[in-house]
Amino acid sequence: MSGTTARRRGRPPRAESADTRDRILTAAREEFSERGYEKTSVRGIAKSAGVDSALVHHYFGTKEQIFEAAIAVAFAPALDAPNAVADGPLEGVGERLTRFVFGVWDNPTTRAPLLAILRSAVNNETAAAVFRRLVATQLLRRVAAQVDLPDAELRAELAAAQIVGTAMMRYVIKLEPLASADLEQIITRVAPVVQRHLTQP
Amino acid sequence: MSGTTARRRGRPPRAESADTRDRILTAAREEFSERGYEKTSVRGIAKSAGVDSALVHHYFGTKEQIFEAAIAVAFAPALDAPNAVADGPLEGVGERLTRFVFGVWDNPTTRAPLLAILRSAVNNETAAAVFRRLVATQLLRRVAAQVDLPDAELRAELAAAQIVGTAMMRYVIKLEPLASADLEQIITRVAPVVQRHLTQP
Repeated sequence: MSGTTARRRGRPPRAESADTRDRILTAAREEFSERGYEKTSVRGIAKSAGVDSALVHHYFGTKEQIFEAAIAVAFAPALDAPNAVADGPLEGVGERLTRFVFGVWDNPTTRAPLLAILRSAVNNETAAAVFRRLVATQLLRRVAAQVDLPDAELRAELAAAQIVGTAMMRYVIKLEPLASADLEQIITRVAPVVQRHLTQP
Repeated sequence: MSGTTARRRGRPPRAESADTRDRILTAAREEFSERGYEKTSVRGIAKSAGVDSALVHHYFGTKEQIFEAAIAVAFAPALDAPNAVADGPLEGVGERLTRFVFGVWDNPTTRAPLLAILRSAVNNETAAAVFRRLVATQLLRRVAAQVDLPDAELRAELAAAQIVGTAMMRYVIKLEPLASADLEQIITRVAPVVQRHLTQP
């Protein structure tokens, strides 16, 4: 995409444009996570990033495309091919998936895209479709592909349901004692359930 | 509350007022489930129920109180004391809880209050507080009280996370194959996990 940019006259040079893209994505994550998909506007993202709306459209396209780009970064370490989270040995996949997702949720800086997609997907069909593409098609199908059991995809989805449900109760609903529990204690309890969903005959 | 009503002049008689209350609660569930907590107004609920806003306030109080009353009905069968869902034998509690919650979710008519609380609680702190009161304090604490193991409350919350996460993926995000899977197949896979969270030493 920076190739396209470089060909246009008057556009910022390559390095600066990467900076601008990052600034727009950061602003987008903040806006989407605070307001949800529906109430966020491209104009609002542009304003918060200190750029013109046209530049946001130029780099990313529609609001849906901006949303997907802003969210995808959270899943990138598990989507790059090949990677240890999705493609490692089946034994231990429960712990790797659980650690990966809670690692992102537990860090206030990386939490924004997950909050954004969760808040948005439950209220908006376009955002739900992005969730399905990123989480289901890209991440879960990849895990399921290694599971040599009937209903591998259903298994992967029920495993994801335990992780997403726990993250929602802990970080969004803030149910106690879950919200204040030690992260290792949660991983110790959740990882075997994820493993069981995926691999128990 | 109908006692209070009956004492007031010009208010509808007892039977009619029970009808009106039901109509207001049904309208409230529809409004909250479609729009979420923030975008729903007492005026909108009143309009949809065909009554005056003042009457809604008279019967239920604030928007938060209307929300809680509208949602509570979904949990009533598990909150009435004593009942088979929460107070039956510990063996089989996983299946009872799972069947109860999915029974409510899987029925399009009883799904509205659950959609309302899920959509609202992830985006609004007042709605999240209602979720915590109804689900955590009233239902989960009661289940946890019977579990004679350390971290009984944390266990109950992780069990609830599996159920809520699965319901969200199936009914809200509509992830396939989970969304179209046979309900019995889901219960067969989820119930043992709920039981395990609650009772495995």
